[in-house]
Amino acid sequence: MEPLTLHEDPRSGNCYKIRLTAALLGLPLERRHYDILKGETRTLEFLATVNANGRIPVLQIGAGAGARFLPESNAACWYLAEGSGLIPADRFARADMLRWMFFEQYNHEPNVATLRFWLAFVGEGNLSDQQRAQIPAKRAAGEAALALMDQHLAQADWLAGGMLSLADIALHAYTHVAEAGGFRLGDYPAIGRWLARIAATPGFVAMD
Amino acid sequence: MEPLTLHEDPRSGNCYKIRLTAALLGLPLERRHYDILKGETRTLEFLATVNANGRIPVLQIGAGAGARFLPESNAACWYLAEGSGLIPADRFARADMLRWMFFEQYNHEPNVATLRFWLAFVGEGNLSDQQRAQIPAKRAAGEAALALMDQHLAQADWLAGGMLSLADIALHAYTHVAEAGGFRLGDYPAIGRWLARIAATPGFVAMD
Repeated sequence: MEPLTLHEDPRSGNCYKIRLTAALLGLPLERRHYDILKGETRTLEFLATVNANGRIPVLQIGAGAGARFLPESNAACWYLAEGSGLIPADRFARADMLRWMFFEQYNHEPNVATLRFWLAFVGEGNLSDQQRAQIPAKRAAGEAALALMDQHLAQADWLAGGMLSLADIALHAYTHVAEAGGFRLGDYPAIGRWLARIAATPGFVAMD
Repeated sequence: MEPLTLHEDPRSGNCYKIRLTAALLGLPLERRHYDILKGETRTLEFLATVNANGRIPVLQIGAGAGARFLPESNAACWYLAEGSGLIPADRFARADMLRWMFFEQYNHEPNVATLRFWLAFVGEGNLSDQQRAQIPAKRAAGEAALALMDQHLAQADWLAGGMLSLADIALHAYTHVAEAGGFRLGDYPAIGRWLARIAATPGFVAMD
């Protein structure tokens, strides 16, 4: 595989997903750091060369003039893992894995990750009135997402296909640090057991 | 392929994605209708048998006791299209297609689709104060998503891989009806030409 570079903020769970995927696959990854709180992913240079959407993570494949850039954490994980044991071989299970990854971006990340970002990094006192007004709805939606996962994981060791897959990696990222956003993981015992299973996987790396 | 049933609300762009994918592939699809405004996807029966997340669309594969249920529109499109000409053969292009599909669920749908739903279906007068307070932020984020697509489509006929793919189907769904949410498609000429290319594809079906 061509040289891989991860454009990232190490505090971001979306970036960590890609690091964990690469680690489990034994793929070397160069890391380039940006501070999103300082706007380092909104500079003209970043927008022109790395991601016009002004967001990290971005997986860079190759170097120099031929380098290609892949935004969106779950797409980057897919790129790294295609053909590996982190993606189920069965057609339905593969789509079911993607189902949990889309759920992650739509139902989980905007609530569980955003509250962590607002409360643990921006600070509640620095939020706008409009952000503060959204906290109860994001709290409820985040709890609903965690409850749905817990209900599923009470009956299955893994989210899709009966095996550790990208779905588990994607949802582990912000779930395991959800308490920084004010969620209580003790309320979700099946999630707790699942997090422990993931952390015990050979090759596992922790978030920085 | 086993019999396919789409659990849907015909007004939903997320449901339409699956219909359009099936039509382009020539796959027959039985349709079962629910009215989301009447809570028909939150009944105990729906939650227990179709989707514990209380959302449509859900693609049902097979019938009777062996039926399997796949929520998340983009995962359902993937299931239908795997191995077909709607998914690029090149590894990077395939991940890049998924990149636009995750962008759709994270940056586009919560803004462009939600404003259409609020303004054209719920009605501005029926919104909660908290919903109304979110309109400016959703308007700005929706315009940013459309601008990013327009910038990309000014230089490429299709979103990923130089071909019509699931990325185009996913983003077409709510983009082509964005004016119902108060967006002006005339501001995005490259999007206009791209929408016309999609509508001219053999096998294309319109939203109900």
